[in-house]
Amino acid sequence: MGPAEVRIAAFGGSLRAGSLNGVLLDHAVRIAEPLCEISRLEIRDLPLYNQDLDPTMGDGDTPAAVAAFRNAIDAADGVMIVSPEYSWSVPGPTKNAIDWVSRPAFDTPLTGKPVLLAGASPGPAGTGRAQLHLRQILHSLRALALVNDLQVPFAHSTITPDGGLDPQLELRIGELLRELVDDARAASAADLVGRYRVPPATA
Amino acid sequence: MGPAEVRIAAFGGSLRAGSLNGVLLDHAVRIAEPLCEISRLEIRDLPLYNQDLDPTMGDGDTPAAVAAFRNAIDAADGVMIVSPEYSWSVPGPTKNAIDWVSRPAFDTPLTGKPVLLAGASPGPAGTGRAQLHLRQILHSLRALALVNDLQVPFAHSTITPDGGLDPQLELRIGELLRELVDDARAASAADLVGRYRVPPATA
Repeated sequence: MGPAEVRIAAFGGSLRAGSLNGVLLDHAVRIAEPLCEISRLEIRDLPLYNQDLDPTMGDGDTPAAVAAFRNAIDAADGVMIVSPEYSWSVPGPTKNAIDWVSRPAFDTPLTGKPVLLAGASPGPAGTGRAQLHLRQILHSLRALALVNDLQVPFAHSTITPDGGLDPQLELRIGELLRELVDDARAASAADLVGRYRVPPATA
Repeated sequence: MGPAEVRIAAFGGSLRAGSLNGVLLDHAVRIAEPLCEISRLEIRDLPLYNQDLDPTMGDGDTPAAVAAFRNAIDAADGVMIVSPEYSWSVPGPTKNAIDWVSRPAFDTPLTGKPVLLAGASPGPAGTGRAQLHLRQILHSLRALALVNDLQVPFAHSTITPDGGLDPQLELRIGELLRELVDDARAASAADLVGRYRVPPATA
């Protein structure tokens, strides 16, 4: 990897086979490949979050899937989350993955890093409500959600299980990924990770 | 069980041993016992949510823990959720449990049922931010979050691992549980479950 190469980690998608968000994530990874070093992370092997198994908190053995996920986010300059919306909010499995990289406070693998939010829904909402909750969650970790994000409503008309993608959507994903890569490069150059990993002064 | 008996299901708590919220849930169950038929549900055995394993959606085998959890919520007149707050929001495991009772749309095991929200934190927030997200999640399911809820900040001073509980907190938990039982009885008498389990007319 050359010194200018930006590393992006991507995760999310629902766990079901043939998920719209899984297909969207496949496309995003494909479109990202010429732009950066992209790695797709799997969240289905993470156990339910338990502080006793958190390597930053407990004394227990860290599950291998947890260590791998933390290391991959830690090594990235920026992150993309492609998630469905369940019950107007973040799916349990997506939040569970974030919980595993949420400690220690003010010094998490996500702190100081740009994050692109994307999601697709069969109905009209396009996962926008889940993304609002994600923005608040990421802000608590001092991660830097990009101002621009992607909602894909009525996704059956633009994303097909056989791998089809609407051309306008293909272009938009490319634009957003270039923003993410640019922001991740800038954040790395400015050492935002180091700057944000400072606990606040207490009274 | 007599005809006037109200059935309350309670779940939550974090998965770690000695959790403040686990101890708070223990106390709430104890205080509820003279007021209603209370059952404490375990969420740690639920797998990560996967639509392919959802008995209302997929064709796969429903995990036994999922069937038991759904049946217990289905049989309850009201629900209590005692959850920590992670990253200003709902913990992954708590949301994961709700995901398993979030379908079919407009006809979930939670629809039309009163829900009491409670939580404890070692710091100042008392889980209030997680409860705001929970209120929105529950509203999407047409569950009826009680207007009153319980935040316990600085919980190490009022809840001790050896089973101690601040007397004022004991009284407040009792008041809220009586509200929950009264609301659950009224909701059952008014058949709110039946009334809310009606899909909206579409244009």
